[in-house]
Amino acid sequence: MSQAAYVAVDWGTSSFRLWLMNQAGDVLSERRSDEGMMAAAKIGFAAVLQSHLDAVGAAAHLPVIICGMAGARQGWVEAGYIDTPASLASILQRAVLVPGQSRDIRILPGIAQRDTKAPDVMRGEETQLLGALGADGEALVCMPGTHSKWASVRGGTVERFTTFMTGELFSAVSQGTILSLAVANADEAVDTKAFRSAVVAAFEAPAFAANLLFQVRSGQLLFGGSAASAREKISGTLIGLELAAGLAGDRSRRDITLVASGRLEALYRLAFDSLSVAVQSIDSDDAVRRGLALAAKSLAATSIWTL
Amino acid sequence: MSQAAYVAVDWGTSSFRLWLMNQAGDVLSERRSDEGMMAAAKIGFAAVLQSHLDAVGAAAHLPVIICGMAGARQGWVEAGYIDTPASLASILQRAVLVPGQSRDIRILPGIAQRDTKAPDVMRGEETQLLGALGADGEALVCMPGTHSKWASVRGGTVERFTTFMTGELFSAVSQGTILSLAVANADEAVDTKAFRSAVVAAFEAPAFAANLLFQVRSGQLLFGGSAASAREKISGTLIGLELAAGLAGDRSRRDITLVASGRLEALYRLAFDSLSVAVQSIDSDDAVRRGLALAAKSLAATSIWTL
Repeated sequence: MSQAAYVAVDWGTSSFRLWLMNQAGDVLSERRSDEGMMAAAKIGFAAVLQSHLDAVGAAAHLPVIICGMAGARQGWVEAGYIDTPASLASILQRAVLVPGQSRDIRILPGIAQRDTKAPDVMRGEETQLLGALGADGEALVCMPGTHSKWASVRGGTVERFTTFMTGELFSAVSQGTILSLAVANADEAVDTKAFRSAVVAAFEAPAFAANLLFQVRSGQLLFGGSAASAREKISGTLIGLELAAGLAGDRSRRDITLVASGRLEALYRLAFDSLSVAVQSIDSDDAVRRGLALAAKSLAATSIWTL
Repeated sequence: MSQAAYVAVDWGTSSFRLWLMNQAGDVLSERRSDEGMMAAAKIGFAAVLQSHLDAVGAAAHLPVIICGMAGARQGWVEAGYIDTPASLASILQRAVLVPGQSRDIRILPGIAQRDTKAPDVMRGEETQLLGALGADGEALVCMPGTHSKWASVRGGTVERFTTFMTGELFSAVSQGTILSLAVANADEAVDTKAFRSAVVAAFEAPAFAANLLFQVRSGQLLFGGSAASAREKISGTLIGLELAAGLAGDRSRRDITLVASGRLEALYRLAFDSLSVAVQSIDSDDAVRRGLALAAKSLAATSIWTL
């Protein structure tokens, strides 16, 4: 096993992931926990990080590069935003040093769209974009999640982006409305057909979103149907609504890059497929790690870090 | 004061309203409580009703006519549904007797749309429609609420209707997502400007609903803004989304009847006004009471009741 050169951390709102990396950008060791910003704000960011550094046996001098909500105002140290149009390379030049630490720890900035008609912010996804596309990439990128982001990138510059509360709406609607009765005790069976037709229905008539959701209940009342099927309909409706806006209703687009992992990747690939939209898929874990590796290289190239 | 002839009850999911009526259809006494179907299912429907009958001093022989969720499967006695296309007059002929009671108590049926592409159900709103339009009415009717209903009525027949989870989405989104931070400790001040522009934005780009909601948060982060303003934006976005579907994106419609009361009536009137759509407004309390009075008259005309 080659020698550890630095530590890469993706510190989100509700999740923490750490990788011990060698100089070539290979993963030597990994840690995952739910000590995201919300939990770490209570425990202490330095203590959370140190516990994971100890767990992977990181030497005392190893530097750390972090992206995500650790750089938010409510996070560890505010890392500010780069404004759109934002070149992905510029993110690398604006890493903020965490003061008062024995080792060199830096947090990457987010991106802000300071448009009063379409205000938006991202933290962490800019690093995914950098890793997925490189510093001169070009694509319309869909990054699903609690707050899904769609970014239009040209020549390595994030021109515009749009956040959809899709994941969070799914939770709120499934748990906090009458639809909680429809999905109660749902098993894990995935009703692909129900999901697909819900995606298409919402894509074709997005204005009816709040009615399509109610149909999950009224359809079950009048025609029956399983709880798992109800869950897939809610999920398909909300993802179809997101795709209607992200694709601007255009099924003929062929420049979409999906950056996602695991269950979400499968779900969104199915959603795009339901609309016959071809996508290129990039693993989001790989992408964020590659982005953090580019940041580490950049810090070494400017002699801030010695890797 | 003229003599009490019958008792009219609007028994919703979460609210109970009772009126002591004379033969002419005037209100002699009123009761309101939160003993809706959910609460009454635990306490017992007969006991809840009797306590309110006692409170208004209703004589033991006075008959009772009920509409709403008391007729649901989970209610007191299931009153079934009339299927669309449903003539409003036919509701009057299908009142179901509550068995085993010392007085004559009847519950009106709901309306079901047994269309697998657009399944829908209503209970209580059919009585509002009857009261608002009469037995040969004609209009596109918007009935706002937890589950807003839009009904297309021609020649006294409900041809189609559509339910939107607008009110419930407002609660779930305001309380169960990151937007709860944006609306925390909001005062009562109504930011009419924020509400109006949110209505227009969602009406014009309904596919962006899940993004417009996120903008409530990102806009506050980047540009500030009060919690009350955030609440109005959420409300305006969800109502604008409903109106986009209800009006089928057509601002030139002039046949809309709004059946609502109080704060909701004011809010929806403002929403329609933001889109320059003229509406005729009918008080929903008056409407449901008039509908129940028509049912009482009908029972008397067929000699089932002696009023």
